[in-house]
Amino acid sequence: MDLCMIGIRGHSGYVFDSVADVPEIRIAGVCVGGSGCDDDLSPLETPAREHSTDVQVFSNWQEMLDACNPTMLSIAGPLELNATICIEAFKRGIHVFCEKPIALTLDELDASERAFADADVHLAPMMGLRYDPHFYTAWKAIRNGAIGDVRLVNTRKSYRLGERAEFYRHRDTYGGTIPWVGAHAVDWISWLTGKPFETVFASHSRCANRDHGELEVSAACQFTLADEVLATASIDYLRPEAAPSHGDDWFRVVGTEGVLEASDHCVTLINADGEQELASACDRRIFSDFALCVRDGREPLIGPADAFAVTRACLLARQSADEGRVIQFTDEDER
Amino acid sequence: MDLCMIGIRGHSGYVFDSVADVPEIRIAGVCVGGSGCDDDLSPLETPAREHSTDVQVFSNWQEMLDACNPTMLSIAGPLELNATICIEAFKRGIHVFCEKPIALTLDELDASERAFADADVHLAPMMGLRYDPHFYTAWKAIRNGAIGDVRLVNTRKSYRLGERAEFYRHRDTYGGTIPWVGAHAVDWISWLTGKPFETVFASHSRCANRDHGELEVSAACQFTLADEVLATASIDYLRPEAAPSHGDDWFRVVGTEGVLEASDHCVTLINADGEQELASACDRRIFSDFALCVRDGREPLIGPADAFAVTRACLLARQSADEGRVIQFTDEDER
Repeated sequence: MDLCMIGIRGHSGYVFDSVADVPEIRIAGVCVGGSGCDDDLSPLETPAREHSTDVQVFSNWQEMLDACNPTMLSIAGPLELNATICIEAFKRGIHVFCEKPIALTLDELDASERAFADADVHLAPMMGLRYDPHFYTAWKAIRNGAIGDVRLVNTRKSYRLGERAEFYRHRDTYGGTIPWVGAHAVDWISWLTGKPFETVFASHSRCANRDHGELEVSAACQFTLADEVLATASIDYLRPEAAPSHGDDWFRVVGTEGVLEASDHCVTLINADGEQELASACDRRIFSDFALCVRDGREPLIGPADAFAVTRACLLARQSADEGRVIQFTDEDER
Repeated sequence: MDLCMIGIRGHSGYVFDSVADVPEIRIAGVCVGGSGCDDDLSPLETPAREHSTDVQVFSNWQEMLDACNPTMLSIAGPLELNATICIEAFKRGIHVFCEKPIALTLDELDASERAFADADVHLAPMMGLRYDPHFYTAWKAIRNGAIGDVRLVNTRKSYRLGERAEFYRHRDTYGGTIPWVGAHAVDWISWLTGKPFETVFASHSRCANRDHGELEVSAACQFTLADEVLATASIDYLRPEAAPSHGDDWFRVVGTEGVLEASDHCVTLINADGEQELASACDRRIFSDFALCVRDGREPLIGPADAFAVTRACLLARQSADEGRVIQFTDEDER
């Protein structure tokens, strides 16, 4: 099972975290991505060589696919090429593990979804937070009925801004803060409710972005889902540098029989049994979960339907924020 | 300084908490409110008699105002009469301490605001949470620059539902969950940002309201304010009966230089100095703050402009939720 890897703009590290769980995998080739992209390849090349001694380095991703004809491909940008590379991989019958968002425009997303439908491959987005022990435990408790039917979800993503690379500062190479940071929050909403999105209203702002060009540093999204389930996402890059962690990831899920809150260090459940902290664990890791689906057909924690639905929700939320209006998910005319 | 009191549908108790702080006040009369209202008057009458021995009891609030000609009036429903009673009090030159929402419709609110403009009286809504030691401390820290300029506010109000009285089950006697429960969250947003509201999008749902008629048990509101400040409010009645408290009140304020979270038991600030818990205190109480403004002209923590702006924001949010569309605050045509 040969694996090729493209790009360092995101979570390629997920591959190295668990590639050893699937001994059949050989890393055949690595590449930074687009022509003219001068990203430093060493964060890919060094750990790839530690895993597979005969890794080839390419400067062009198409040449890499021609030369290696891999079983699997990991894609982590350049983000504006994610959809193009996905489509090419699908056409070649290559299974894809892709950084979110898997497309930066709705047209690219549609094209990607059509190409996927014509292929017989697996696709997983790099939504690593589903595999975090706390968030995974929370989801499992909800699925096991700990809070009854989900009626309301609040989510938060808050990051330190720091000094970001140039590609973050332009919509056409970054995609926007709702798709890039907010994707996790939107994925949680989809995952925790298990319902289809119906409408979104969102807002975002570049104010106080400390000379980061087009990068939005605050955003809020409000979704309605089937059966009048409501959900909110608060997104910002304003977490202080002196904060105890880079991110402040959190969700709260309100059900007919209880309320659950989860962060990356704690899960608290309140229901008829009173208040309790849940012991957290997750026995899966995101890349090997993807690879074991490819190898054995094992049901993964996240798959293609999630990748497409969440990317669509993020891009419609971004459009809502750009245009200041409510967008219906079912109304194709809205585009 | 004679005080009359109408109604038990809300926080009349605030009066008794601090009426002793202003020794000049005599409670002259009490009344349950509207004709045909069969509310039990004892929660008003008993503590009123403990304070003032010669309290008169009335079955009709107009007769009470005629007979007592009070300096001040406390109004706590019936909620659908709040605006009518306010208007009559303003016309008579009586200072008003009123349960929120001070009006259940925009027309009533407009009429109330016009009557107030023609009068020379003080008005304060019963927004007791501004006087909570933790929320007050949070607001003061923000006003003193602890987090720089406010860019994003998240708020939450979550209550146990229990078994509610009949008036909660009808929009025309309750007003809806966004104005009734959400008013506090909307008030926090206005208070913490100090900015005018520009747009709102809201949603609410009656699903899972356990036979409570028209009462909405989940709601979400998203506001934009001047200078691209964003704010969210999450509102629900789904807090489990076995929860450690009746309510789960909370807000989070994200600024250019820090983040602050406050609940009714803790205030946490993260800024350039790292993370710290703030010692909480408030040296004012809501009713005496109102009465001392009347007596001495002392600047109160909440006043008429807040009462009108927050009620308007709540009623526009409710309209947005009813109609499923974004509402602009400046566009009078929207009504």
